[in-house]
This record gives sequence, structure tokens and C-alpha cells, in this order.
Amino acid sequence: MALKDELDIVIPTIRNLDFLEMWRPFFEPYHLIIVQDGDPSKIINVPAGFDYELYNRNDINRILGPKASCISFKDSACRCFGYMVSKKKYIYTIDDDCFVAKDPSGKQINALEQHIKNLLSPSAPYFFNTLYDPYREGADFVRGYPFSLREGAPTAISHGLWLNIPDYDAPTQLVKPSERNTRYVDAVMTIPKGTLFPMCGMNLGFNRELIGPAMYFGLMGDGQPIGRYDDMWAGWCCKVICDHLGFGVKTGLPYIWHSKASNPFVNLKKEYKGIFWQEEIVPFFQQVVLPKEAITVESCYLELATQVRDKLSKIDPYFTKLADAMETWIEAWRELNEKVKPIAENGPVKLSSKAK
Amino acid sequence: MALKDELDIVIPTIRNLDFLEMWRPFFEPYHLIIVQDGDPSKIINVPAGFDYELYNRNDINRILGPKASCISFKDSACRCFGYMVSKKKYIYTIDDDCFVAKDPSGKQINALEQHIKNLLSPSAPYFFNTLYDPYREGADFVRGYPFSLREGAPTAISHGLWLNIPDYDAPTQLVKPSERNTRYVDAVMTIPKGTLFPMCGMNLGFNRELIGPAMYFGLMGDGQPIGRYDDMWAGWCCKVICDHLGFGVKTGLPYIWHSKASNPFVNLKKEYKGIFWQEEIVPFFQQVVLPKEAITVESCYLELATQVRDKLSKIDPYFTKLADAMETWIEAWRELNEKVKPIAENGPVKLSSKAK
Repeated sequence: MALKDELDIVIPTIRNLDFLEMWRPFFEPYHLIIVQDGDPSKIINVPAGFDYELYNRNDINRILGPKASCISFKDSACRCFGYMVSKKKYIYTIDDDCFVAKDPSGKQINALEQHIKNLLSPSAPYFFNTLYDPYREGADFVRGYPFSLREGAPTAISHGLWLNIPDYDAPTQLVKPSERNTRYVDAVMTIPKGTLFPMCGMNLGFNRELIGPAMYFGLMGDGQPIGRYDDMWAGWCCKVICDHLGFGVKTGLPYIWHSKASNPFVNLKKEYKGIFWQEEIVPFFQQVVLPKEAITVESCYLELATQVRDKLSKIDPYFTKLADAMETWIEAWRELNEKVKPIAENGPVKLSSKAK
Repeated sequence: MALKDELDIVIPTIRNLDFLEMWRPFFEPYHLIIVQDGDPSKIINVPAGFDYELYNRNDINRILGPKASCISFKDSACRCFGYMVSKKKYIYTIDDDCFVAKDPSGKQINALEQHIKNLLSPSAPYFFNTLYDPYREGADFVRGYPFSLREGAPTAISHGLWLNIPDYDAPTQLVKPSERNTRYVDAVMTIPKGTLFPMCGMNLGFNRELIGPAMYFGLMGDGQPIGRYDDMWAGWCCKVICDHLGFGVKTGLPYIWHSKASNPFVNLKKEYKGIFWQEEIVPFFQQVVLPKEAITVESCYLELATQVRDKLSKIDPYFTKLADAMETWIEAWRELNEKVKPIAENGPVKLSSKAK
């Protein structure tokens, strides 16, 4: 299964991309969008043979102008700039400390292929199937599953998992420094409608046409009071919008091998406000109701920005800034994505620069 | 882990229980409640060494009198009589065509031990944990999981799965006669609050103190218009009550080996009305709201009976009869379970008869 004209791989990084060597057999057919974080004068080496475009902070500022304020700096949240400049239907994003994992038979896992399978088959968000993904070979809907629900819903998001270093918060890292995820769970499942989940950006596929404008990773890192909530924020926003619009979100396979635990003390500093705030953010998202008139992702997202401003700003002025940034993000998304629509008239807008 | 004074194993059957030989190492310490279906004059052989009580239809009629009408005949739904006469905290129920399965390493799976683990550890119904059961060894709550929700909820139900013959409905059996479930998914998960699931009674554990009075398997089989919806009905009732009362429902491990597919033509005859009706029953349960004043399982269940009568009787007069039976079931439950409470005064009521 190769969808090379329909999928971009987005990688945020601050270093040379040697990790791509291991992914070569799986990634080489695809186009990479590399979002360089931190010092733009630093040269990022990309192994030969990969087709890529690379954006550093100067590129982001040049392309977005004042709207570049919505893109985080010194935080992997900057990756969402790559979603915005892509023109493909599907995105796969992966961290540069993630390597190819092996399944229990010892075979290398083609994570990208599994994400594509997940995204191309429907989800089952309206009723739980006890044999997991009913669309998978060798499985089906079990007795008692209403037939009218078996068509399922289009899949917007495929959330993959991690062997070795689990995606724990700083307190859990501190308490269990040597815990490793060694359990290979051979399942893909739909997260039911109405249920929120912690979406990790480490190994994530999505349908950009269905949910792209909601895949904003927020304001994190440099100049912001929190970090490490970029993917969580995107996940909560996306999930309520998917539920509202009738799209599915899957989690489970594929696994990648997460090689290196980040520093728990540094993480605690980034996270500690988020740890308080999530106690109010999660109930907010659990109660969000989007109006019936909101029938596009963009209109849902703007409505969500308004509700964030109205209901979360009491926690901290940060949420007013975040709501503003959510609106800026949509403006920037529209600008970049509308510009390129009439290709025949204007030709494609040149948005990329190559580092080398 | 042996809870022999706190758990009964309930087995509905019409035949000799040779299948118990394979379960001997795991089941022998426990007390069995055998509910004999069909012809009460038939002798059911139970392998030597098992501690059991056996009830046939004559026993049920004698013990419940006119209220025996709520217990199905010629259908494995009769098993719920065993839940009613048990005095233990936990129930494990298994079909007599279910054998010991093996895990991928070839080790025999002690299904009962896994159910007990599932029931003794909390559930996580309010937010999805992407690494599955966070209470399991080697796992935890992932980043972004609110700390206030990590205490979880008491677990009321542990729904186990099946290798080999999957629990498919008759249409799926007919379309895929040779499909076998060979996928061992090494996971236990909580079914989120607000999500319904198809509960199969083949391999099922539950906490009788928490949810017992809602574990009624309905009117099926002889004289009834449907069959094979007994466990589904119980599952839908239990799930909405668990959600209302704050209890958790788990599914996944343990697997049993389901040896024999039932006849799909016979099944189709039993199921076909249910296949129509579930299209209305499931939306009914998805919308059920129980009043705040309903704070016991019994009061929730009686409220549900009223709503079934009010809202489902328009489908078929069967639902009026079923609502009546739900009320009769609660009356019978109360009678049997209140009678035995003042043991010191009256001594335990003799409820059982042994076949041999």
C-alpha cells in the first residue's frame, strides 16, 4: 500500500535526522516536511535519498508574517506548521527519537502502512465491538451489534502507540523511572463517541481533509507558561469535533520503538501548570456542545476558540491568548490553503525552502 | 489468588459436565451452581470431586413458586437463577462448550484468576487510557490523564473473550462459516461511561453485591418470541445502571477456547426478531436517563422496567411481558436474598437439591 502522492510525513526536530536511516525502507517513497525548531542558523543533516522540504523559524516567519505568532517556538508543537503547508490528504507525524519496533514474531513493523490501513477503513464510534476493530481481517462485528451501525464512520485520526519508553507525565516518570512498555497489544480500536483520550503526537496519522484545521498544537515552549500539552490540546479539540461531525478516532497499532525518556525534572517544569489546569480543561471538553450550524471543521474550531476564551480564561490569562492563537491559526490555515486551490490560475505558491 | 468463599461458578447445561475435567485445576476449589435446563428427569453427570449444587426446572418452580415465570426455560438464560440463589460476592459464569485456552506462550489460561484480578482492581470509565488497563503490572496512566480520575471506579463486571469460535450472530455465521478468532489481544480495558457494548454470557464475571439484581437474562427460549438476546439484554441493563451508579465494566482478557459453533439456521430463527428489535432497543438504552433518587441497583432496575414498558412495548407486546418479568425477578431476588440475611435466627434456607 503506497499512497505517496497523498501523504506527507511531518517531523519536528532540532538535530540531524540520522533516525531516518532505520525508517528508510518505509519512508523513502514519501515526501517529508521537516519543521526545524530552535536556532534557524543550525544546519540539519537529512540522510541522502529522502525527498523533503525543510522549514526553520525564519521560513515560518516569512511565510506567515504576523500570524507566525500562533506557531510555537522551542517546542515540538511547531510541527503543526507542517500540517498547514502540506497539500496532501494524509499526514503522518513522528518524533525523531522513535525507531522501528518489532512485532512479537520479530518482524519490523511498518508503522506507516498500519496508519494508512487504519485511516482507510471506517471507525465504529457508536457502539463498542468487543473483538476490537471489526474491519480487520479475521474479525467482524459480534452478536448484538446493531446492523445499522456497521457501516461505521470515516476515520479522521489514527493514534499509534510506543514500545519501550511509555508516554508518562513527569510525576509518573519520577515514581517509575525504569518502567518500560513491553506489552504488544495486537489491537486497533475506535475511541467511542463522547469519550476523551490523551492523544500523543509521537506516532500519529490523520486525514488532513477531514480534521486538519483542528490539528493545532497550541502555544507551548518559548514564552509560554506550559509545555508538553500540545498534542493533548489538539487531541481534545479534535475529539469533540470528530464526535460532532461524525468522524472516528482510532488508537492501538502501530507501535514504534521510543528510544529515550525525556528528563523528568525538565518535564515537570513544563508540565506542572498543565497538571493543575487539566483538571478543569478535561471537564470543559467533556461538556462542550457545538452548535448544529457548525458543519465544517473550521467553523467548529472557531466556535471552540470562543468557548475556550469564555470558559477557560478564568483559570489563567493564558487561555485568552490561546483562544486568540486558535483563531489566528485558522486564518493562517485558510490563507495558505485557499491560495493554492486555484492552481490552474496562479500556479502553486512557493512555500518551501530546502536547507541543503 | 483463591476466593473460594467469595465466588460461585454458575453453569447452565442440558448435558453431562465432562468439560469440567479440563477446568479441574482451576475450578475444583470453588463451589459450582449448576442450572439444569430442559427435561428435569434427565440425570446430569458431574465429574467426581467437584463441590456443587444443581437445580432443575422442578427445583426452580418449587423455590420460586409463581415467580418462576421470570426464569427462562429451554434457553441458557436460565443461568440467572444461579445468580439469585448464590450467596457469594462474586459470580463467574461459563458455557459448557468452553474449554481452557492457551496464551501465545502455550501456557494454559486460568480464566477465573484473570476475572478475579479484573474485578478486584478499579476501572477507568471516565477517560480513555491509551495503554489499556492502567492498574495492570507494567502499565499506568499516560501523560494527559487527569490525576483526579486515577482512583477510578469499583469494577462491577469483567467480560472475557473467546478464541476459536467467535460470538457472531446468525447472519455473520452464515456469511463467514469458517472464520475463527486466532488473535490473542493481551489487554483488559474499561468500556467508557456512556458507551454500550454487546455483553456475551459465555465467559463472564461480576460482582453480585454491586450489580447482581440487574444481571437478569430476560425471557428467552420456550414460549418466547426470541432467543440469544439474554446476555445482550442483561448487558445493556447493567451498563446503563453501572454508568448511573459509578461502577466500571471491563472487557478483554481472559480468553476461553470456544469449541463449537451453534447451528446458524437454528440461531437465525431465534434471533431474527431480535435483529429487528435491537435497532430500537439500543437507541432506547443509549437515551435512558435514570433518576437521581435511584441509588440502588434494585431501584434503578425497577425504573428501567417501567421505561421498558412505556417505551418499548410499541415494538411488540413481548416488551410488556418482559417488563413484568423484570419486576418479578426483583421480587424473587429480594425474597431469596432477604430470607437468608438473618441466618442466626432461622438458619440458612435450604434452596438446593443435588442430582446425585
